[in-house]
Amino acid sequence: MKTTPVKGTMDYLPQEMRVRDYLQQEILKTYLACGFERIGTPIIEDIENLNKSEGGENLNLIFKVLKRGEKFEKAVAEEKFDELADMGLRYDLTLPLTRYYANNRQKLPSPFKCIQIDRVYRAERPQKFRMREFVQCDIDIIGSSSLNCEAELINTTAKALRNIGFNGFRIKINDRRILRSTLSAFGFADEDLDSVCITFDKLDKIGAEGVKAELTEKNLPAEAIEKLDGLIKRMPVSLEDVYEFCPAADIVEGIKGLIENVSKVSKGLYEVVFDMSLVRGQGYYTGAVFEIESTEYSGAVGGGGRYDNLIGKFIGENIPAVGFSIGFERIAGILLDKGISSSNTRKRVVVVYDENQFAEAEEYAESIRDTYDVSLYIRPKKLGKLLDRLTELGYYGFYVVGKSEQIEVF
Amino acid sequence: MKTTPVKGTMDYLPQEMRVRDYLQQEILKTYLACGFERIGTPIIEDIENLNKSEGGENLNLIFKVLKRGEKFEKAVAEEKFDELADMGLRYDLTLPLTRYYANNRQKLPSPFKCIQIDRVYRAERPQKFRMREFVQCDIDIIGSSSLNCEAELINTTAKALRNIGFNGFRIKINDRRILRSTLSAFGFADEDLDSVCITFDKLDKIGAEGVKAELTEKNLPAEAIEKLDGLIKRMPVSLEDVYEFCPAADIVEGIKGLIENVSKVSKGLYEVVFDMSLVRGQGYYTGAVFEIESTEYSGAVGGGGRYDNLIGKFIGENIPAVGFSIGFERIAGILLDKGISSSNTRKRVVVVYDENQFAEAEEYAESIRDTYDVSLYIRPKKLGKLLDRLTELGYYGFYVVGKSEQIEVF
Repeated sequence: MKTTPVKGTMDYLPQEMRVRDYLQQEILKTYLACGFERIGTPIIEDIENLNKSEGGENLNLIFKVLKRGEKFEKAVAEEKFDELADMGLRYDLTLPLTRYYANNRQKLPSPFKCIQIDRVYRAERPQKFRMREFVQCDIDIIGSSSLNCEAELINTTAKALRNIGFNGFRIKINDRRILRSTLSAFGFADEDLDSVCITFDKLDKIGAEGVKAELTEKNLPAEAIEKLDGLIKRMPVSLEDVYEFCPAADIVEGIKGLIENVSKVSKGLYEVVFDMSLVRGQGYYTGAVFEIESTEYSGAVGGGGRYDNLIGKFIGENIPAVGFSIGFERIAGILLDKGISSSNTRKRVVVVYDENQFAEAEEYAESIRDTYDVSLYIRPKKLGKLLDRLTELGYYGFYVVGKSEQIEVF
Repeated sequence: MKTTPVKGTMDYLPQEMRVRDYLQQEILKTYLACGFERIGTPIIEDIENLNKSEGGENLNLIFKVLKRGEKFEKAVAEEKFDELADMGLRYDLTLPLTRYYANNRQKLPSPFKCIQIDRVYRAERPQKFRMREFVQCDIDIIGSSSLNCEAELINTTAKALRNIGFNGFRIKINDRRILRSTLSAFGFADEDLDSVCITFDKLDKIGAEGVKAELTEKNLPAEAIEKLDGLIKRMPVSLEDVYEFCPAADIVEGIKGLIENVSKVSKGLYEVVFDMSLVRGQGYYTGAVFEIESTEYSGAVGGGGRYDNLIGKFIGENIPAVGFSIGFERIAGILLDKGISSSNTRKRVVVVYDENQFAEAEEYAESIRDTYDVSLYIRPKKLGKLLDRLTELGYYGFYVVGKSEQIEVF
């Protein structure tokens, strides 16, 4: 039998789990303190829901769950090999949330502010900080189109990161509609905008020349491509500059107000910047998009945006919604690399006893459990070796039943 | 798109999640206080590991994950329809634990006392308290064959239940070897013992006559069946009685000592009884087995036992192990039915503000977040309706920016 966990998943040692639990609890505490409510959804979702969810390239990464019994036999007998699965593991927490909201909205306040801290699955090629099973920490506000929601999500997420000691970050903001209205004004046709955005999103990977080449290959209007190229060469552009070429002045105004609002409540503890090159992959975003950038490590450690049309796919009525997700694995990885420990957890003591002294040992252990986490160990032949191992694991001290006067601190 | 969660899974409302989180945190706290360490394992496991794991009837309930890409194409092309899956969702926490121990034992103390509080999956026909996705709370001790481990697991589990306010239970104990050695003495052949145990385990469902009929149908020796029937008619038998017909006196002695040990540390707060009819379904148990029986609700709310051979399947060297699992869904269901609330969580306050007062609202909210969880709401047209809904959700009070002098308690 295979002893390693399946590819892209992890076994966590006790000391790693303590840190992971601590970080998740602290993040949860911040979210709760800011008035969000935790909900729970299953890890498995209907395969049709997942397939229709506009998750962009994530749709290619879904782990599918095989049908069972007669339904499986039927799919095989009829050679319908694309109908072998009836469920899949969720690839994010947004699709389950929109289904959840559609299912439960009569019981929820409006707007509804919710928390999800849970596992998601993607069949990606594993690499450092990129797992096939990983945790996301999401907050979402459903039922309000006020940009104050964006401000709240950004400020709450930043607070959560700061509360776990993750300080080196800044938050980038854009609005999809700024980009799209600019591209329209440049002369791209409406039906090509998605395609242009996908290419533009590769800017940091393929560079200005690469974007130009790809758009040309797509047979898009040369004049529009030239204008976009001119814009790319001017980047980074400030929000003030955007008024020049973006006809959607009200959207630019909104983002300006959002950045001002966040700046007021951030008290200078973190930075929020406009970044016109920010697109974000998911197909479902309709307005503001944001991303957390680590100032010490490359790549995003979180992101989000407004998705006003997604819930409508379930209930036929558009309900505004916006969310922000922390990529827990990257944050935890960075903090563990930096040497964060679980110094916040209770001190642990070992009580060593002879095999026939169980009840006495338990009685003593119980008497100090208000103060310590206490583990019982039958006295081994090599007591020193056990105590050494427990010291490594961060134990505080030990007590030998019938021998010690008091707890001996390591 | 479908709005309900997939069959046998649940959406949890905020008030349910608060209770679930509270119960899991309290159980974890008790386990930690008793010196166990939390570990983490993935929800997906290699399909071969799952299939070879002696999980009894649970093996028929595994959700299988479809292969991807070329491997999937290959299985289809070669018509190997029993090789379409390469992974499965775990059906319990014991198989992942044994794989984990085999993978990590060099880094772990011995004996290793560990905690798992996590989700498992079974494709069962859903019914009340029986879900397809559900949480188990397990503690295990690996690397010691002392019966003190059984005593510790029983006492720690009982403590966890009492700490969450679940008091109406008793713990039943048996040892597989008592039953098997008795059955041997009655004249059943060694190779038939598993089969006899499976039938005997149905006693509470099919009754004494049913057991007799099924064993007769299996063509087992009539004399042995008569002797077993005689024993069943004497049930419940006390541990003292067992010496009469069970040749394995040392095993009986061990269970007697275990019950004495537990009785000493239980301080009369819960009851531990010998129950010779207790078998437990899993094929991997080798010694003591236990079960928590609710005194108010029918059926088991937890169970466990010793599985000394399971880790050997991974590393070719038998390592003793014993575990105890709480069925979280049943316990949570019973406590929620009884009306447990999350009175332990922090009080929640809503701060209502006009859309242009975001920064002031956030500033006030932040100033009271040491004491309360505080949620911001833009003042709606119907303030009363919002406040009513938040009262239902258990909010403590509200504050209207620029209007209230102080928090008004609901």
